[in-house]
Amino acid sequence: MNVVDLIRKKRDGKALEKDEIELLISGYTKNKIPDYQFSAFLMSAYLRGMNSKETSYLTNAMLYSGIVLNLDSIPGVKIDKHSTGGVGDKTSLIIAPIAAAAGVKVPMISGRGLGHTGGTLDKLESIPGFRTNLSISEYKRILNKCGAVLIGQTKDIAPADKMIYALRDVTATVESIPLITSSIMSKKLAEGIDGLVLDVKTGNGAFMKKEKDAVALADSLISTAKAFNKKVIAFITNMDQPLGNYIGNWLEVYESILILKGEKRNDLYELCITLAGTMIFLGEKAKTQEQGESIAEELMSNGKAYQKFIEIVNAQGGDIGFIKNPEKYPKPSYKKVIKSSVNGYLKSVNTFELGMAAVELGAGRMKKEDKIDPKAGIIFNYKIGDKIKEGDVIAELFSDKKKSILHVEKRFNNLVEFSDKKIGPPKLIKKIIN
Amino acid sequence: MNVVDLIRKKRDGKALEKDEIELLISGYTKNKIPDYQFSAFLMSAYLRGMNSKETSYLTNAMLYSGIVLNLDSIPGVKIDKHSTGGVGDKTSLIIAPIAAAAGVKVPMISGRGLGHTGGTLDKLESIPGFRTNLSISEYKRILNKCGAVLIGQTKDIAPADKMIYALRDVTATVESIPLITSSIMSKKLAEGIDGLVLDVKTGNGAFMKKEKDAVALADSLISTAKAFNKKVIAFITNMDQPLGNYIGNWLEVYESILILKGEKRNDLYELCITLAGTMIFLGEKAKTQEQGESIAEELMSNGKAYQKFIEIVNAQGGDIGFIKNPEKYPKPSYKKVIKSSVNGYLKSVNTFELGMAAVELGAGRMKKEDKIDPKAGIIFNYKIGDKIKEGDVIAELFSDKKKSILHVEKRFNNLVEFSDKKIGPPKLIKKIIN
Repeated sequence: MNVVDLIRKKRDGKALEKDEIELLISGYTKNKIPDYQFSAFLMSAYLRGMNSKETSYLTNAMLYSGIVLNLDSIPGVKIDKHSTGGVGDKTSLIIAPIAAAAGVKVPMISGRGLGHTGGTLDKLESIPGFRTNLSISEYKRILNKCGAVLIGQTKDIAPADKMIYALRDVTATVESIPLITSSIMSKKLAEGIDGLVLDVKTGNGAFMKKEKDAVALADSLISTAKAFNKKVIAFITNMDQPLGNYIGNWLEVYESILILKGEKRNDLYELCITLAGTMIFLGEKAKTQEQGESIAEELMSNGKAYQKFIEIVNAQGGDIGFIKNPEKYPKPSYKKVIKSSVNGYLKSVNTFELGMAAVELGAGRMKKEDKIDPKAGIIFNYKIGDKIKEGDVIAELFSDKKKSILHVEKRFNNLVEFSDKKIGPPKLIKKIIN
Repeated sequence: MNVVDLIRKKRDGKALEKDEIELLISGYTKNKIPDYQFSAFLMSAYLRGMNSKETSYLTNAMLYSGIVLNLDSIPGVKIDKHSTGGVGDKTSLIIAPIAAAAGVKVPMISGRGLGHTGGTLDKLESIPGFRTNLSISEYKRILNKCGAVLIGQTKDIAPADKMIYALRDVTATVESIPLITSSIMSKKLAEGIDGLVLDVKTGNGAFMKKEKDAVALADSLISTAKAFNKKVIAFITNMDQPLGNYIGNWLEVYESILILKGEKRNDLYELCITLAGTMIFLGEKAKTQEQGESIAEELMSNGKAYQKFIEIVNAQGGDIGFIKNPEKYPKPSYKKVIKSSVNGYLKSVNTFELGMAAVELGAGRMKKEDKIDPKAGIIFNYKIGDKIKEGDVIAELFSDKKKSILHVEKRFNNLVEFSDKKIGPPKLIKKIIN
């Protein structure tokens, strides 16, 4: 069977076999199948869909396009978490130390900021000296010693994903559940995990705007994880407003410290307890999810999670002086305070645009080549349903770029809506699927 | 709007605007849009379809990627015929001289053999000396002088089609009605015609196996022709058996001579009267289609159509000695006679495989680079419904390739089916659409 026959088969809505998908992926990664044929395949997969078997075959082929880490030499159950991305989502920085403090092994391979969303790597690298480009042997050593390690994708891990993602980006084939699933899972499975907690975001700041799309993606991720005999639990969580109050790389590290030290309680805290508790349960350090959550809360209140964070930062070369004394961190050149001009209840936040505003201030990249400013970002003080009085500080903006901060300041009022009537807070955790 | 947005729009099933389609076609032909984006667009157009407006816009953009001939200086109404291709389909060679003899101007730009089907250019070039690669000025001169001219596509005519067709061929996006329509019509409209007769084949030897697909293609071709203010009539005709009895390049020229001289009457004769009669009607040399058919029959019986054929062959450099004395034509090295081993009625012909058998004998190309043997081919003596006795000669095979002729001989019996019961002949002209 040649490539055109395989494209035609998918085009006609038929399911591809394992060897057919392997031929497509190995052909493409070995440059035997040209971009123009693979993009026709991607569009046919986008429009015709792929069933759960095909999605697993695709994930498997992409996984084995590179190395698959074997962590058998490290004792303990290895559990990671994956979030589909949102604004202010810094849970990885908090739950990795919690789960590690509970005795779970947490091997995390994370990504960089994409569009309006931040990336765990960019956040970690705002800590001076923090290294995310570790070798495999360093990765294993730190995981074994600290119980958690947070690195970036190497070129050896799922190289097919890197090639395919770049092509999807320029051929309007990004928003496809089987293609998203195989992209996420091929990288996660390469980490050598035993289980995975999934945080699938939905709302105006998420990639999946509609809850039903988020559920469909969660179902696809779960069925693929199960096909690889991995333990898995997924949460559908709200992204109609930023998670926590801080947006921007160092600002998010700072908020993580506050949460870990128990100095702040908000939606971020609540979600971290749930996710970390579930990791502890999947990691066999608790008999139930609820017990996992209790352990997580205890590790926060007794300071052990915070100590574990210090330990991880130190092991990866980060300057713990800034963690212990965050006030020493360099200050941005400009700061603007946004005050409310009305009395009312916060009704909605344009979370996508809020994320884009943070990018404009320097917290993310407009173009691939752009450098990130770790100090830039936004503190957004309120949550949907909060009562706000005229003159209250809604947000604070931080940037080194004068023009950008003035521009964001000017249009900030368009990003929030108020109501005269009392409004309940949105439900943070909308669904649990396993 | 950028290219990804345009692909996304078509992917999501929305109709593209005129300027958007022009941007895609001019971008692709000027190498500003890479193959991998254009193939994603083609697959989205294949799967989502294009409405009649989009198809006209696409045709227009492809048409104006090259030169559009202006035949205003040549008096008379210019009418061409297009067939979607089949086995033994040599109507162009017969109807161009008939219509020209009636006073219609027939500017024909034809193609070469493709897959199991023959091509008018290959057939004409089997006449020693016959030139199909005329310059535009020669083309106009011969059209004006003889009333008909038959040439091949030049690189200046619809170059976008050439590029797009090559990409469709390797990305499983060939069998799409809007894409086929724009490919056919962009070339036909470039000829400078006033009207077009369409012969859309359906059956096991046609590209459109199902009648409903042939009708849908005819509808699309008609609506596009009308959008360009061209007169148009389409016929849906049977291709469940070869048209006429001769398959192969010189063999088909020979059968055309027999038909033109009135020495043979068969389904080919019948279809030629209908098509030529319709050209005469559209060319305003008859008041009705029926009157056009009567004129066509008269021009056959009074020898004027045959004389016109001689005139055209002569004008295009062909050796009319072989037309007048076909027995002087070189003979193939091998001949095999296929006899019936049963008594019965011819029930079905695997027309596709019969066409492929002719290709194997040398009448067509397996690969683009292959040379055609003008002498090679098959004479297939019977029509569906004919009574056949044991020992009757069903077919004669001709080739210079011993191995090929033996191979075709061996499997020939698999290409035909017989029945004990009497069977009626299939309807040749299934539908007329205008």
